[in-house]
Amino acid sequence: MEDGVLLNITQKLLNDGKYSAVKNIMTEMNAVDIAQIISDATAENQVRLFRLLPTEISAETFAYLDTDIQSTIVDSITNAELGKLVDEMFIDDAVDFLEDVPANVVTRVLAHTSSDTRKTINRFLNYPEDSAGSIMTAEMAAFNVNCTVEEAIADLRRTALDKESIETCYCIDKNRILLGSVPIRRLIVSKPETKIGDIMYDDEQLIYVTTTDDQESVAQVVRKYDLLSVPVVDKEKRLVGIITVDDIVDVIQQENTEDFEKMALLIPSEEDYMKTGVVRLFRNRIPWLLILMVSATFTGFIIDNFEDKLAAVAGLTACIPMLMDTSGNSGNQVSTLIIRGLALGTVKLKDYFAVLWKEIRVALMCGVTLAAANFLRMYLLNFVTHSVAADRMFRIFFVVCISMLFTVVVAKIIGCSLPMLAKVLHLDPALMAGPMITTIVDAVSLLIYFGFATVVLF
Amino acid sequence: MEDGVLLNITQKLLNDGKYSAVKNIMTEMNAVDIAQIISDATAENQVRLFRLLPTEISAETFAYLDTDIQSTIVDSITNAELGKLVDEMFIDDAVDFLEDVPANVVTRVLAHTSSDTRKTINRFLNYPEDSAGSIMTAEMAAFNVNCTVEEAIADLRRTALDKESIETCYCIDKNRILLGSVPIRRLIVSKPETKIGDIMYDDEQLIYVTTTDDQESVAQVVRKYDLLSVPVVDKEKRLVGIITVDDIVDVIQQENTEDFEKMALLIPSEEDYMKTGVVRLFRNRIPWLLILMVSATFTGFIIDNFEDKLAAVAGLTACIPMLMDTSGNSGNQVSTLIIRGLALGTVKLKDYFAVLWKEIRVALMCGVTLAAANFLRMYLLNFVTHSVAADRMFRIFFVVCISMLFTVVVAKIIGCSLPMLAKVLHLDPALMAGPMITTIVDAVSLLIYFGFATVVLF
Repeated sequence: MEDGVLLNITQKLLNDGKYSAVKNIMTEMNAVDIAQIISDATAENQVRLFRLLPTEISAETFAYLDTDIQSTIVDSITNAELGKLVDEMFIDDAVDFLEDVPANVVTRVLAHTSSDTRKTINRFLNYPEDSAGSIMTAEMAAFNVNCTVEEAIADLRRTALDKESIETCYCIDKNRILLGSVPIRRLIVSKPETKIGDIMYDDEQLIYVTTTDDQESVAQVVRKYDLLSVPVVDKEKRLVGIITVDDIVDVIQQENTEDFEKMALLIPSEEDYMKTGVVRLFRNRIPWLLILMVSATFTGFIIDNFEDKLAAVAGLTACIPMLMDTSGNSGNQVSTLIIRGLALGTVKLKDYFAVLWKEIRVALMCGVTLAAANFLRMYLLNFVTHSVAADRMFRIFFVVCISMLFTVVVAKIIGCSLPMLAKVLHLDPALMAGPMITTIVDAVSLLIYFGFATVVLF
Repeated sequence: MEDGVLLNITQKLLNDGKYSAVKNIMTEMNAVDIAQIISDATAENQVRLFRLLPTEISAETFAYLDTDIQSTIVDSITNAELGKLVDEMFIDDAVDFLEDVPANVVTRVLAHTSSDTRKTINRFLNYPEDSAGSIMTAEMAAFNVNCTVEEAIADLRRTALDKESIETCYCIDKNRILLGSVPIRRLIVSKPETKIGDIMYDDEQLIYVTTTDDQESVAQVVRKYDLLSVPVVDKEKRLVGIITVDDIVDVIQQENTEDFEKMALLIPSEEDYMKTGVVRLFRNRIPWLLILMVSATFTGFIIDNFEDKLAAVAGLTACIPMLMDTSGNSGNQVSTLIIRGLALGTVKLKDYFAVLWKEIRVALMCGVTLAAANFLRMYLLNFVTHSVAADRMFRIFFVVCISMLFTVVVAKIIGCSLPMLAKVLHLDPALMAGPMITTIVDAVSLLIYFGFATVVLF
């Protein structure tokens, strides 16, 4: 609401040419909110608003803009302005930006930044996607272990504003090997003449990740130890960067979204839904729809082979969707819990037999309840409407209810086993379990149903 | 792996009575890892290990233990030890612990802590569950606006170790009204005689939440502004606490897990899967299974009414599961994207018509592709095995394929509309959309299929 009001005001002031008034309003605001105002403005005003910002604010604001607006701005500013802008940005933000823009923009940017920035950016751009190296930033507070608290604080006084976070400072030797960490509060309460090396957390207590670690495992470390930042080292254990928890929050949301998408049979995409084109949406959706449609050929065959018998007994066909839906739902309930448990580390592979034993008991309770409720439903609704003998009718009821019990048990067993099997095979549980469970459970349910029907009714 | 080795070592040393060696090993470790060692030890050793820890480490370790181990420990320590332990803990950890233990333990704890701690804990326990008040902590760095940088730093030197985070300090007036915030690095680089009030971020740039805000909306604020901590104020805008981002990370994971569970037709539960009893698991699962089984009565009726016609045309019945599965999957793909978009704020209610238009186009592309693939599949597999005239066979193919196209389009429309409708009605999109989509899409698919069959084949 407030954003809308501010947008109107800035719009009006801009149109009236009152640039300094707009500038004053914006410099009072948070970079996130300035980015919002710019995003909501017309394309022409976006560039005018951006150019009104002082450099240090403009760099932070730029990092919060969407790629398309970033590109518009880059196209409209001079090479000198561009160089200054990128020099002023935190390395991780600059790398994020450069990863999303066309190659010619990257070339132009790199040609006009300082050589230090250029070197760091080039190195960061080479880390594998979704690795710790690709999301870290180089602006951390690091001190030699022999440095005193007084020297460290004096250094921070000069440089702190350029650091992404100083909540934790890191201790290195002359070869930049990471030796320990010191929380800023511990630094502040220590005597000025104390050596950093004497108050640092080291050995067992020093938590770090390496540049090639996957961002998901970094997120797990940060969560486990409740860290505000984690140091990143190269394979020689040299300190090369830090990852702050605000970037980890984004990683967690991204990984969660990916799991949601995989479980909903989508090809995961990092783009926002509203910004994704129709063709891309189609391409993310059609593969699994096609694969599962074709795999439904099996269920088709099973039904086809049983068609004459289905036709002979009224009511049998009508129960197929209910049985398939209930067993599918039962299987999905478990597989979701197990996939989530595996992702969060609360369920481990060694728990398999405990999980299985748990699921068999839950399945029996669910199966008996559902079978009983179903019997009641069929009886009350006088489900078999055609005139058949009572004995025959109860046989049909029996087939449906006993099938219900067995399919639920089988679905729960498959639902807990498949994700763990995927994990054993180093496949992605979320990716593999969803589609396979539906297909397998569908086919098994029908086989159970038709099996009981054949024995009891024919 | 390392945990296992350490566990064995500590176990052996404990059994040999070498307590001081165990103590030395543990005081070198991180509280999270100590908690792990204690959790994996035998019940008897758990208490022995815990009592070996110095108070400041024991309080932090205690916060990372599970409720059952916390209870065991509380039962085995003296009242004086208990009082000291709780006094030493951060308020949010103490409140977390007290929320999970029996009332008699709460009484015992409150009877033996200092009166300050007791008052704060009591106040915190009264905030509604999942509100900002219930997850905040009281240990923050706050200064009067008239205080100088020198005074603030001197104060931090005395008190910093007791604060949960000093990355951002907060500025208040004499009535504790929140006026601004100062990042520690800004404090450090400022001249000693500067007034805090002159360097603080205020007005538009000051971000805060109130005690009654829902934790999910707090998480959104923290994510939006990339904060490491956010101040919490009461309704008079008095500063009462802060929430640090590590607690927000837990909130985000919890909310995500809840959404996963709702979409998998489970009653959400905060307990870990491995710790949840069979009866509780059953109770979380059976409601939706029962409701959806009963609602399958509709599809049963639809099929029942069409049973004679299904029996008359070979192959028609066999295609039912494929049509229902494909439309169900199509609907779920969209609803998941929309539910996730609504949760993350990337899709808004005002976007409805844009979403609908997008989905109709995607659905047509998916529908045509699936129908064509299905035609090919049926043709190649010579699906209608019974001897029917070619003309008749193609009519059956046509019915299945045109139904496929229509059901996919309808499923996508329902899939994007239901979550947004839920949001309009202030219902939970994740809770409402999953179960309803299956039921509605199943019934509609059958009606479309049988409708086309009646027109074309009979």
